[in-house]
Amino acid sequence: MKNPKSNFSEWYTEVIQEAGLADIRYNVKGFLAHMPWSVRTMKNMYCILEDELERKGHEPVWFPALVPESYFKKEAEHAEGFSADVFWVTEGGRESSKLSERLALRPTSETAMYSIFSLWIRTWRDLPFKTYQSCQVWRFEGKSTRPFIRGREFYWTEAHDVFATQKEAEKQVEEDMEITGNVLKQFAIPFIFFKRPEHDKFKGAVSTYAADSIMPDGKIIQLPSTHFLGQNFSKAFNIKFVDKEGKEQYAWQTCYGSAVWRIFGALVAIHGDDNGLILPPSIAPLLVIIIPIYFKGSDEKVLEKSNSIKKLLESTGIHAKVDDRAEHTPGWKYNYWELKGVPIRIEIGPMDIEKKQLVLVRRDTREKITIKESELVDKVCKLSEEIQNNLSRRAEKSFREHISEADDMTKLTRILKEKGGLVKVEWCGSVECADYIKAETIGGDIRGVPLGKEEKAKGNCIWCGKKASQVVYVSKAY
Amino acid sequence: MKNPKSNFSEWYTEVIQEAGLADIRYNVKGFLAHMPWSVRTMKNMYCILEDELERKGHEPVWFPALVPESYFKKEAEHAEGFSADVFWVTEGGRESSKLSERLALRPTSETAMYSIFSLWIRTWRDLPFKTYQSCQVWRFEGKSTRPFIRGREFYWTEAHDVFATQKEAEKQVEEDMEITGNVLKQFAIPFIFFKRPEHDKFKGAVSTYAADSIMPDGKIIQLPSTHFLGQNFSKAFNIKFVDKEGKEQYAWQTCYGSAVWRIFGALVAIHGDDNGLILPPSIAPLLVIIIPIYFKGSDEKVLEKSNSIKKLLESTGIHAKVDDRAEHTPGWKYNYWELKGVPIRIEIGPMDIEKKQLVLVRRDTREKITIKESELVDKVCKLSEEIQNNLSRRAEKSFREHISEADDMTKLTRILKEKGGLVKVEWCGSVECADYIKAETIGGDIRGVPLGKEEKAKGNCIWCGKKASQVVYVSKAY
Repeated sequence: MKNPKSNFSEWYTEVIQEAGLADIRYNVKGFLAHMPWSVRTMKNMYCILEDELERKGHEPVWFPALVPESYFKKEAEHAEGFSADVFWVTEGGRESSKLSERLALRPTSETAMYSIFSLWIRTWRDLPFKTYQSCQVWRFEGKSTRPFIRGREFYWTEAHDVFATQKEAEKQVEEDMEITGNVLKQFAIPFIFFKRPEHDKFKGAVSTYAADSIMPDGKIIQLPSTHFLGQNFSKAFNIKFVDKEGKEQYAWQTCYGSAVWRIFGALVAIHGDDNGLILPPSIAPLLVIIIPIYFKGSDEKVLEKSNSIKKLLESTGIHAKVDDRAEHTPGWKYNYWELKGVPIRIEIGPMDIEKKQLVLVRRDTREKITIKESELVDKVCKLSEEIQNNLSRRAEKSFREHISEADDMTKLTRILKEKGGLVKVEWCGSVECADYIKAETIGGDIRGVPLGKEEKAKGNCIWCGKKASQVVYVSKAY
Repeated sequence: MKNPKSNFSEWYTEVIQEAGLADIRYNVKGFLAHMPWSVRTMKNMYCILEDELERKGHEPVWFPALVPESYFKKEAEHAEGFSADVFWVTEGGRESSKLSERLALRPTSETAMYSIFSLWIRTWRDLPFKTYQSCQVWRFEGKSTRPFIRGREFYWTEAHDVFATQKEAEKQVEEDMEITGNVLKQFAIPFIFFKRPEHDKFKGAVSTYAADSIMPDGKIIQLPSTHFLGQNFSKAFNIKFVDKEGKEQYAWQTCYGSAVWRIFGALVAIHGDDNGLILPPSIAPLLVIIIPIYFKGSDEKVLEKSNSIKKLLESTGIHAKVDDRAEHTPGWKYNYWELKGVPIRIEIGPMDIEKKQLVLVRRDTREKITIKESELVDKVCKLSEEIQNNLSRRAEKSFREHISEADDMTKLTRILKEKGGLVKVEWCGSVECADYIKAETIGGDIRGVPLGKEEKAKGNCIWCGKKASQVVYVSKAY
């Protein structure tokens, strides 16, 4: 790595390339060629997320990537909100003939799914109906794109739930927060779950909630979000059910979006250091990399020991690999695997074999630990847990250090400029004030009220000085 | 089920709907809304396929779904061959403005990947390079579409491999056959791997090999296929490497496509019976369904026992579920789960509890087996294996019964009309004769020569009567 992490923007671009995560040279703006190391990690992340969704009663479905324009436009506010994001398929076949109806490449799947939900849901017995799909979505982003942060193609999971009552749907929002918490915890990513202000809702939703985390440059990144849709979509798509009394009613809905692709970007940014990536053991494609260190004449013995160590680890379910490439020095290999963020390195030389010991190096602190060979499995498991916890602690500490408070615009502007993060302010609730705050701070958005931790406003709006109605957080965001 | 399996076409349509596999009412031709039961099964199938590919040294990648027209057209024969299949994205953004270049929705990913492979592959050290991605592809099919058999959107896995020598690439074709064999075996699907005739190759390939299985109506279904690309694409996409002697060379390539979506269709068709789906235990979302049978006053005890049986099974890694719905009778539930093809049913009534016994019903033969409760786990495991083997045997038997031989056109035509399947004939190798054979038999295609089991032609071409050069198989195909 040429760039220290303190040059965050350059560091991020460099680590994506040097750690072999993705290639940005695919010739369409905002589209990436994803390399094995990131795909393996994201597949592990997908497993964790899908397991959690299924544990909470969601079942997997696969809906089409193309949405007919007539479906897409059924919910007016949603269609208006997403229209700028759509790639349109207009032609097909040998003569590239015009299609009779334009097809939207899904920017999100509400309109594809709900047209069919209306056929599937008949009576109260079909409810609650909880479903998810993991897929790609495409958005014609105007803003500048960034690997794993903002793209025109990205990988996510969307859950779509239907209920008989408003109360159940509202409870789902809390469950979605729980899901988000359980999942992000395994990725060692701290966050606050906000209720977004009215002017920043998902288009078509009654209310929107989202998890915000903080990037090393102090900017916020929005991670999973969930939306209480009320009956807006059920009315537009005619999703009705017959209740226990035999009366037909419109259903209540929620939707939840969790982009593994973007969470991966946050994770790269939050945990990495000057030497490259640091992957949490919970999702690293490899937990242990074994580097044989040859001294004259010892090659065979060292390689043999390395392989038997690998076998032993794998027999307990630990992913391990021996880097036995002859063309590189041990030092080169240390750098290579540090860059890729493998949590634990084992160095094995002839002296270690003689002394029946092993040298373990943890990636997070780069600390060296010499252990007895007989303790290996036990030590690796403990170290793995320790690294996971240490990454959580470190991330949490940095997150907390980026939370501040401001009671006047000068202070707010200064904090956002100097260290970023989330700044607590009081606000009157008007969109005009939000706009002025954004202009004055050059990009400071009102992220909303922390769900379940609402504070009562006591003073005045930081912009207009009138009586404040809410305590909210302001930040600049990706 | 209203239709017996002997009315195959109607039966197939009915089982897709009644077993809750997919909804065909999505308003775009050839696109399906996939329901949880099929998605769960296909996810299990994906695991088996991806594990096998990774065991053979393939690493996962994710490439864009959109391919710029300039990439798409680089290999002339390939572009020509696939041009009729393409959906084109031509517009995007708020004003639906025309894009500067049309983007193809990938019908297959060679052109997306190889443009980037040319940047990744530099020296012999980068080879062999073996990679795969699981994704959707889209093809603007003119032919009539059918769920899980022919669609405009389907789910597959494609492997793309690059080698330093022709020999290694040719060996990959054999490995692909091995992969196919190992995977289809777990799905209990018999097949023959054919080398396709020249006129039926993948567009851009030097040679094409494909696994053919036989559907219950005697028509053939093509399952995984693999293509030896030679240097056709490496020359078009400039994929070069520096060899050990420091000389620059074009690489040798293969690509392999395995559509889980289509294999699922074949599996539904091949294993099912008059009562619906029969899923092989290796991939069934549930291995065991437990039906509590209540008699007056026994409800609680029976339900409790059912749940404890489920827990016991799950503790050994077996997927089991209790159908405790109060609104349905046991008989209704038997039908419901038979339709869905769950391999083993357990019936539990108060008498069984008293006698410490359980009634097991296997889905494949519908045979009832009474066992001691204490033997449960052992019996379920054995039964699962037995069902898996029985499905393989049954399918294999039916497959073999559909293989015939013909030495004149009358016989060939009659066999293809009456029972279908694969018919062995001798052929001179000319495309004209292939065309005549197809016309005369109303659709009989030459599927090619069985790989590794070539027979020497002894007689004359079944059409023109000139000396035959190959022993090939003819069939009608989906």
